[in-house]
Amino acid sequence: MPREPRWNAVIDSAARLFARNGFAATSVREIAEGARLTKAGLYYHIRGKEDLLYRICEHSIAAVLAFAHAGPAAESEPRARLAALMRHHVDFFVAHPDNLKVLTCEMGALSPGPRAKIADLEREYLDLIRGIIRRGRATGTFRDIDPTVAAFTVLSVINNLFDWYDPKGPMGPEALVGHLEAMLLGGLCAQTPENTK
Amino acid sequence: MPREPRWNAVIDSAARLFARNGFAATSVREIAEGARLTKAGLYYHIRGKEDLLYRICEHSIAAVLAFAHAGPAAESEPRARLAALMRHHVDFFVAHPDNLKVLTCEMGALSPGPRAKIADLEREYLDLIRGIIRRGRATGTFRDIDPTVAAFTVLSVINNLFDWYDPKGPMGPEALVGHLEAMLLGGLCAQTPENTK
Repeated sequence: MPREPRWNAVIDSAARLFARNGFAATSVREIAEGARLTKAGLYYHIRGKEDLLYRICEHSIAAVLAFAHAGPAAESEPRARLAALMRHHVDFFVAHPDNLKVLTCEMGALSPGPRAKIADLEREYLDLIRGIIRRGRATGTFRDIDPTVAAFTVLSVINNLFDWYDPKGPMGPEALVGHLEAMLLGGLCAQTPENTK
Repeated sequence: MPREPRWNAVIDSAARLFARNGFAATSVREIAEGARLTKAGLYYHIRGKEDLLYRICEHSIAAVLAFAHAGPAAESEPRARLAALMRHHVDFFVAHPDNLKVLTCEMGALSPGPRAKIADLEREYLDLIRGIIRRGRATGTFRDIDPTVAAFTVLSVINNLFDWYDPKGPMGPEALVGHLEAMLLGGLCAQTPENTK
């Protein structure tokens, strides 16, 4: 992957256009214009439009996955670890809203080979979250909710923020994360007689 | 809207194809073949491909909205009311998985006028859920979680079931709803000292 600043401009331009208009409706010429390059200049950086889509998806899932692996130590308390992971995922969305929208909505436009590579990374992320939830159940921190349902619940909520949440709106990201933690981790941990069944 | 059984075959064929291949990649000829009609025969029922997309979206959101309005009485207990609404929405997904996937993923392909009508219905559904949550807060059933965040959390989870949940898989819809209720309503209701902040 080229490391020059111009490469970041290319990725940003493509993510913005794919998020706004969809992958199919975006032309290489528009991406080049957005990055202040000629079309020929853009082809110095990329093999084609799908290559850009793959890079955006790969960058997004790799970034949240790297934090999930490296962030809080594997042995730390499951609730704190899941909270840190959610917080980082939301922070990544706030910093790169277009990238996560493209990952959620346009991954299906990749051809089978690249799509399978992204799906492998997503599976790794899911397994990591399920592992935290399983450990939380084993230690009695979390109650008896299916780890797959719980993990997809957390992921569905964060990956669909693009659909309704504006980080520049009245509720800041810090407050958003507080409400999400209260609802999702509160639900996993709740131990009142009424809620435990 | 035509009421004949053939109309349902048209809608089912279109929803199946839009869900599998996307609206843009689906031809009117394929929809006609799926409904065992000629292309000319299909145009007796519809004005065009977008008309079908609109009908699928409208049918999906109108069905969950009608239940939400008419189902449990407006004055019933907020937790029970929200549980009934979630249960019905999941049941609708199980019966019509393609329709809800099309509503979630392909609504953006509608032109501005029809899209605004669907968006109005979605807004009505959102407002209804927020109203239940607000009343639950007022009566002390739910704790102090922002109603907009809580409503979108519930909707994001149900509207993304198509992405991972297979009603014919090992976990039946009844068990799924139980886990979702435990996590989402448990989170809204939880009152333990640890979770209340």
